[in-house]
Amino acid sequence: MQPSATVVAEGHLIDSQLLTGIFDTVIERGGAFEVLRFDIGRTNDAFSRLSLKVSAADDSTLAALLEALIPFGCHAADEADALVRPTDRDGVAPEDFYSTTNQRTQVRVSGRWIDVGRQRMDAAIVITPAGAECRKLRDLRAGDRVVCGLDGIRVVPEFRDRDRADFAFMSNDVSSERRVEVSVARIARMVKDVKAAGKRIAFVAGPVVVHTGGAAYFARLVRAGYVDVLLAGNALAVHDAELALFNTSLGVDLDAGAPVSGGHRHHMRAINAVNRAGGLRAAVDAGVLPSGVLFECIRGGVDTVLAGSVRDDGPLLDTITDMVEAQDRYAAALQDVGIVIVLSTMLHGIGVGNMLPAWVPVVCVDINPAVVTKLADRGSSQTIGLVTDVGLFLHQLAAQLAPE
Amino acid sequence: MQPSATVVAEGHLIDSQLLTGIFDTVIERGGAFEVLRFDIGRTNDAFSRLSLKVSAADDSTLAALLEALIPFGCHAADEADALVRPTDRDGVAPEDFYSTTNQRTQVRVSGRWIDVGRQRMDAAIVITPAGAECRKLRDLRAGDRVVCGLDGIRVVPEFRDRDRADFAFMSNDVSSERRVEVSVARIARMVKDVKAAGKRIAFVAGPVVVHTGGAAYFARLVRAGYVDVLLAGNALAVHDAELALFNTSLGVDLDAGAPVSGGHRHHMRAINAVNRAGGLRAAVDAGVLPSGVLFECIRGGVDTVLAGSVRDDGPLLDTITDMVEAQDRYAAALQDVGIVIVLSTMLHGIGVGNMLPAWVPVVCVDINPAVVTKLADRGSSQTIGLVTDVGLFLHQLAAQLAPE
Amino acid sequence: MQPSATVVAEGHLIDSQLLTGIFDTVIERGGAFEVLRFDIGRTNDAFSRLSLKVSAADDSTLAALLEALIPFGCHAADEADALVRPTDRDGVAPEDFYSTTNQRTQVRVSGRWIDVGRQRMDAAIVITPAGAECRKLRDLRAGDRVVCGLDGIRVVPEFRDRDRADFAFMSNDVSSERRVEVSVARIARMVKDVKAAGKRIAFVAGPVVVHTGGAAYFARLVRAGYVDVLLAGNALAVHDAELALFNTSLGVDLDAGAPVSGGHRHHMRAINAVNRAGGLRAAVDAGVLPSGVLFECIRGGVDTVLAGSVRDDGPLLDTITDMVEAQDRYAAALQDVGIVIVLSTMLHGIGVGNMLPAWVPVVCVDINPAVVTKLADRGSSQTIGLVTDVGLFLHQLAAQLAPE
Amino acid sequence: MQPSATVVAEGHLIDSQLLTGIFDTVIERGGAFEVLRFDIGRTNDAFSRLSLKVSAADDSTLAALLEALIPFGCHAADEADALVRPTDRDGVAPEDFYSTTNQRTQVRVSGRWIDVGRQRMDAAIVITPAGAECRKLRDLRAGDRVVCGLDGIRVVPEFRDRDRADFAFMSNDVSSERRVEVSVARIARMVKDVKAAGKRIAFVAGPVVVHTGGAAYFARLVRAGYVDVLLAGNALAVHDAELALFNTSLGVDLDAGAPVSGGHRHHMRAINAVNRAGGLRAAVDAGVLPSGVLFECIRGGVDTVLAGSVRDDGPLLDTITDMVEAQDRYAAALQDVGIVIVLSTMLHGIGVGNMLPAWVPVVCVDINPAVVTKLADRGSSQTIGLVTDVGLFLHQLAAQLAPE
Repeated sequence: MQPSATVVAEGHLIDSQLLTGIFDTVIERGGAFEVLRFDIGRTNDAFSRLSLKVSAADDSTLAALLEALIPFGCHAADEADALVRPTDRDGVAPEDFYSTTNQRTQVRVSGRWIDVGRQRMDAAIVITPAGAECRKLRDLRAGDRVVCGLDGIRVVPEFRDRDRADFAFMSNDVSSERRVEVSVARIARMVKDVKAAGKRIAFVAGPVVVHTGGAAYFARLVRAGYVDVLLAGNALAVHDAELALFNTSLGVDLDAGAPVSGGHRHHMRAINAVNRAGGLRAAVDAGVLPSGVLFECIRGGVDTVLAGSVRDDGPLLDTITDMVEAQDRYAAALQDVGIVIVLSTMLHGIGVGNMLPAWVPVVCVDINPAVVTKLADRGSSQTIGLVTDVGLFLHQLAAQLAPE
Repeated sequence: MQPSATVVAEGHLIDSQLLTGIFDTVIERGGAFEVLRFDIGRTNDAFSRLSLKVSAADDSTLAALLEALIPFGCHAADEADALVRPTDRDGVAPEDFYSTTNQRTQVRVSGRWIDVGRQRMDAAIVITPAGAECRKLRDLRAGDRVVCGLDGIRVVPEFRDRDRADFAFMSNDVSSERRVEVSVARIARMVKDVKAAGKRIAFVAGPVVVHTGGAAYFARLVRAGYVDVLLAGNALAVHDAELALFNTSLGVDLDAGAPVSGGHRHHMRAINAVNRAGGLRAAVDAGVLPSGVLFECIRGGVDTVLAGSVRDDGPLLDTITDMVEAQDRYAAALQDVGIVIVLSTMLHGIGVGNMLPAWVPVVCVDINPAVVTKLADRGSSQTIGLVTDVGLFLHQLAAQLAPE
Repeated sequence: MQPSATVVAEGHLIDSQLLTGIFDTVIERGGAFEVLRFDIGRTNDAFSRLSLKVSAADDSTLAALLEALIPFGCHAADEADALVRPTDRDGVAPEDFYSTTNQRTQVRVSGRWIDVGRQRMDAAIVITPAGAECRKLRDLRAGDRVVCGLDGIRVVPEFRDRDRADFAFMSNDVSSERRVEVSVARIARMVKDVKAAGKRIAFVAGPVVVHTGGAAYFARLVRAGYVDVLLAGNALAVHDAELALFNTSLGVDLDAGAPVSGGHRHHMRAINAVNRAGGLRAAVDAGVLPSGVLFECIRGGVDTVLAGSVRDDGPLLDTITDMVEAQDRYAAALQDVGIVIVLSTMLHGIGVGNMLPAWVPVVCVDINPAVVTKLADRGSSQTIGLVTDVGLFLHQLAAQLAPE
Repeated sequence: MQPSATVVAEGHLIDSQLLTGIFDTVIERGGAFEVLRFDIGRTNDAFSRLSLKVSAADDSTLAALLEALIPFGCHAADEADALVRPTDRDGVAPEDFYSTTNQRTQVRVSGRWIDVGRQRMDAAIVITPAGAECRKLRDLRAGDRVVCGLDGIRVVPEFRDRDRADFAFMSNDVSSERRVEVSVARIARMVKDVKAAGKRIAFVAGPVVVHTGGAAYFARLVRAGYVDVLLAGNALAVHDAELALFNTSLGVDLDAGAPVSGGHRHHMRAINAVNRAGGLRAAVDAGVLPSGVLFECIRGGVDTVLAGSVRDDGPLLDTITDMVEAQDRYAAALQDVGIVIVLSTMLHGIGVGNMLPAWVPVVCVDINPAVVTKLADRGSSQTIGLVTDVGLFLHQLAAQLAPE
């Protein structure tokens, strides 16, 4: 007689492919299932309800299986409180800590289900006097009360909403064989909706924005108030400054499309000029940096964070060279954003994706389909991938949102 | 004492990297060289002149080496007539036939250098009463007088022209990190120049032109008279007809950006409708095909050739299913073209590239850099590669050439 | 009161994501649904049964919606015979002909459901005295009795089989970040299983097999009896012959990895030599072609079809230059194959994919993820995509199947 | 009468394409040239000598032009000492500082040409009592004597060496259509040569090494003594530890090729386990980390540097989170390396490329051709790009260097 347990789940189990995921998971992991009860939602709006008996060859397989079912919204039919244990030292968790997904999560404490705050993936859940929240391992302090094991944890997967106008649009596969103009119109409308709803709009941008001639269009978006947060690296700011000071990007004249004499040194001269001025803001104030994306962001009060990397030149004084600080600053800037648009940067895009809860829509634009696929792979239905030229994309987006 | 020979060459040997190529070739093939005389062009306009003694370990290595130097413009200091031998049967050449490059070529007959006509790569040279011309192996007939061996053959490599405004532009590497808008402006100017010079403009287009929303822009270019030749396959015409009849491409509504009910059958219904009408022209005349790229081409008298392939649906009655005929029709349509623009089709792009002499400029536009690199690799300095979204490219090009 | 209809479906509706597809389709097309009855399969082996009322704003929307539900296995609860109409002329179908998918299909004739033979996508269904079968539009003859409309048509979607050992393996996404050695072992086992079951093994191969050094490994697979069918183009045979005659591929010495003198002409010399001999078989018999993939295929009696294309050099006498004939020969060779392995050829791979029923497993190997994604997108769960170096892949596969 | 100047250059000006570059540069920048004297090297070993008069429309254009000619080895015929000026504050250079290339450089001080030490690109040159050396801008201190302007600076471009066996091999274009096995054999020989010469071998590796199953092969290379330096990021170590602890990589079982239950948490558990132990070395000592790439590197005394990034999970205690420190540690580890092999990491690969002098050979292996092209674009003939599967590449390399 195999060990077994009963789990329950409810929601849009079919359309969100949760039921498939649950059954697949049981079989893949070598278990078996019996549907005790399944009430299907009779219409598109109605929820479905599942009660499922799961069995496996031994207790440890069963435990692993039950853990694997959590992200699909399954929880034990017999409810129990979460196991909470204090960690014994700074920066690490107990060995059996529960590592979060980016889905909405609840934990049961003293018989009551409470929401987990600051949801993100790959974190521990800490119980505080005020409730429960996600915390990175490195931010744990000895004595923090960490949720361990699997009891008393409930995940509420993001449901797909078929009635949203952008449903079919968002469920498209990644492909370069699409009409991008339609996608831009949709994204423009989503951006306007987020702004109208009073939520913040974040862009994550790589230097290719400058190389492909998108900087002027992006600057227009900033001026028009469509950029609340800019997360980038040192290189975007360096090449933006190079463009402002020399009208080149990587030494290529952006009007002529050809390299100019000595142009390969322009980015170093730009770094030196900005740092001599005392950094980007001082360079704007002193008139050293007279235009560009960063110029507009500084003047427009955009929440801007530049994270360093091992390939940086310089870096600019404004670039945060410590990665722990950079991640914390990124995460702080992402609070309450309503949409994130990632422009040609796998590095910062993945960094941002790791910090976001599953319900924040993310738009990834890159000419390389492999980058779009990788960024879109967040276990979330809220991601739109667009394979296109980022300079021309920004041209189209500015034409929609900030016509001249 | 090793066997040796003396070759001479003249022209822009340095800027066209011919001298490097000559020296590299000698060493790579295990030979040795001694510069007998080199007169450098003192200014940018002046030619250089080289006289070079080449030696190798044995006669056959030396012969192979001398053959390898031909494409660089080297020819024997001691001139001899070309060896001409009749082929003994249809469709094949003598074993030692000279296989052409796409560079301008001359052969020496009865002590006189004559130009080879219909220059293309991978052909045999046939001596006719009227002169000399390239002929495909399959077009040879028993008794045709074919140039064999290496004597009396002279190649005049295309020289790079540094003073052309698009020189620096054309020597750029293939990269997706460019400002496409600048490139479009250059290409638009080249197209206008070709038109002004009374030469023909050819486009080679894949179905991605339709999928990415470029059909309407391309149709505008046709109406404005910027398309003299259209070389494509069955799929472009099928999806163009699908768009005209159902407003979808591969079943995706091009305005909504989402698949429509039953849309995966639209292309088959489009094929059936056109073929019921008796083909594309009949369908235009009967009002069955009321708009689109092919509609404009038929109305505008564009020289249009659709070549079949093993992956075709249908095909349309207009599609040439025999590849030998299709190649011949392509080659005929390409006579006297002044520029060729290849839009997202590796298959037809390579086919066309094989047929063109080296001096016809080719522009390759594709979102996949590997395709652009492959098409651009024609042993010619006359190729421009552009890695970008083809729908947005056509939008920009139409805005330059055929503003609404 | 909106028009409505009731459809029924049964099978592994949940695990095969059919139920999701049905609901999505109704909503996307602007309809509404009510679940009249849903009996879920209680265990992994048991079928589910659905009875669904579908409504839409008007009759034509409803009709389109019902058509769109057919591929998910939905059929009318009230059964009717299929509408059969004779076509009025050769090569085309009635306007409202039913265009097939690649899924197993049945039609109702005289109150009896009969299986459709020669299943493939994009065909018409013809009722013959012997039954029903798929026929390409071009093969229709005036008077052929063609199934039209939507009544009396039932599709039986391929169900995913969770208990198959390769289930989890096959449901992986396309990615270059995988351990290829594991995939090769799985594929080797699948190939052995197909052979043991007495079914045929087909390879579809591009010239990259030769360029990447895979020809010797592929030849070993032929010798070991693991290749029953070879579908390719002219280029594979040309470069295979070039390798056999000159030890180069595209002029590159495959042992030294460097171009050799005059090597760019080797492929033309190889074509000339084979065609002088009278074609590939004659060249093998005469000792002109002493080794290689085609040599082994000819000696081993492999069913080999070379399809021409517009980019071909030559072509070889063996290459079928008419695309209609080439497609027919491909399709004939694919009868009763148990697995198809596509090696680095988008052109022939798509051609083959169009001909196959959904239940034949297809393995696509290419270093370009976009090619793999495109080939794998057949509306079938029977496709495995592998992003890797095809030369090294063949090395590994030969080591598993045909160790030296 | 236009301003003009005379420059001289010597070396393998033709085969290294320096002469072409010089002429191109003059014309592209709108100047004119007159060859005063050119003595060509009569044989492959002999140097060429150029004396060139360059003129331009005005003094500033001429100055820019002369600057642009420096990287080609041109220097003023009339020698002058370098202009040396103290910088006025920490971390920045005088505005007209000379920004270095990665080519061998000399500066003229007190009438004597001295070699610049620690050559790298994008640095300032500082004159110290001991000589001259490259220094990053951020490392400059007020009072440092920095070379400014263009006088007294001489670059000695790396000459191509046609007689090296790997010459033709190294001058190949980047392509996925190559026989990788030949390239592996060449690289293995180069690695052995470097080892035999007593120089150090550096690998720069991304986590794809683990995902593609290459970790075991890489570990064998470490054990066999072929890895002196390992430069990587946090992710390589995390997934290597995940493999050692759970036999998964990103939650995928590397033997089964399929995801395992709860596997997406394995990397966080691995981080927690290593950090609980006190870092990688402590984890090895305590037996927590029993195998893998990092295990072998720690036991084998490999100079290992892990640089952080904004997308890191954890990070491990061993990861250097400050980018300035990480760059400095990378640069220190790269002193005296004889070859660098970059495996599937654009981020760290570019970082390393920025630090290396032009004469250190770099091998870039990645399945994405765009990454290889980008990494190979260092203005150096010493780069080999290989487009292939990195797991299979390491299998082949280990078979050559460290057979079991």
